[in-house]
Amino acid sequence: MRDAVRDATLAELAERGYPGLTVEGVAARSGVHKTTVYRRWGSAVGLIADALDRAAAQPWPVPDTGTLAGDLRALARLVATGYADPVEGPVARAFVLAATQSGDAARALHAFFARRHQQSAALVERAIERGEVPADTDAAEVVRVAVAPLFYRLFITGEPAGEEAADRAAAAACAAARAGALTRPPGAAT
Amino acid sequence: MRDAVRDATLAELAERGYPGLTVEGVAARSGVHKTTVYRRWGSAVGLIADALDRAAAQPWPVPDTGTLAGDLRALARLVATGYADPVEGPVARAFVLAATQSGDAARALHAFFARRHQQSAALVERAIERGEVPADTDAAEVVRVAVAPLFYRLFITGEPAGEEAADRAAAAACAAARAGALTRPPGAAT
Repeated sequence: MRDAVRDATLAELAERGYPGLTVEGVAARSGVHKTTVYRRWGSAVGLIADALDRAAAQPWPVPDTGTLAGDLRALARLVATGYADPVEGPVARAFVLAATQSGDAARALHAFFARRHQQSAALVERAIERGEVPADTDAAEVVRVAVAPLFYRLFITGEPAGEEAADRAAAAACAAARAGALTRPPGAAT
Repeated sequence: MRDAVRDATLAELAERGYPGLTVEGVAARSGVHKTTVYRRWGSAVGLIADALDRAAAQPWPVPDTGTLAGDLRALARLVATGYADPVEGPVARAFVLAATQSGDAARALHAFFARRHQQSAALVERAIERGEVPADTDAAEVVRVAVAPLFYRLFITGEPAGEEAADRAAAAACAAARAGALTRPPGAAT
């Protein structure tokens, strides 16, 4: 039942976006009774938080191209492609919008990105092993710099956030990491 | 009258945030009659778009510290300090939230940031003149890389976005620019 409700939540978000998500719509689409959905998920925001929990738990294809430049480019393109996708894009935007309006959705979103940063750290660790970047490079910060310009374009400035923007953001993160500008602050945990 | 309404809009946003902004509240605070506010601004979103227009027109203290590293650090700290400010912070957040819910507010927000990028280009042009970065460095892209991690932390990941985060983002942008990773794409306008 939980999977059916989560699938219905994602499908409703893809079709209607965040403002169009209702417990009634998810109940009707999932075949789960409305009162059950209300009792277990509480509201549209509860449905989104649960969908985000599932998204965070899903395996994420961390790129492994053989170079830090290639891996960061692939990672940034995954983000750009996801937001441009006609099905995934509205869902991903809905997650961010929900977080601006609900503490529960915000907590779920933050946990989702913390998990993504942890998973993506692998590509920086490989670059350290290859000697491409200093040993004390901060993996999460490299990932942040590689994807942040895309989110800035998508949610703040409204500028194009396609493949070219992804490649430029990735190249900047790679150059900064190679220059030693993204090492961990003194005293930080590894 | 327009200034009184804009001041009242900013004061209401600072006190109540975006969800609490109403034409009635702005009318009462500004002393302008409610029907006049409705007729000229239409709605809370119209008030926000107008306040953003004014914010974009205001002079913006583009840092001039003598080095690109210093200028970018000062720029990123301006952003971090603004969002942390008890009065400015809620207003700046309200601008971004309003843009997620209204095309008019989104257009005003995008124009605001386009103007900020234009104004901030001066600090990159000075770095080019000093020979710190390649002559074909893309000024707007340097600014994006320097501030995007802060917006990513504030609006997407919910991570700390204070002075340390500002300094790290600025350092990454400076290193990337110096390494020649932020030049204009071939064929792009200057």
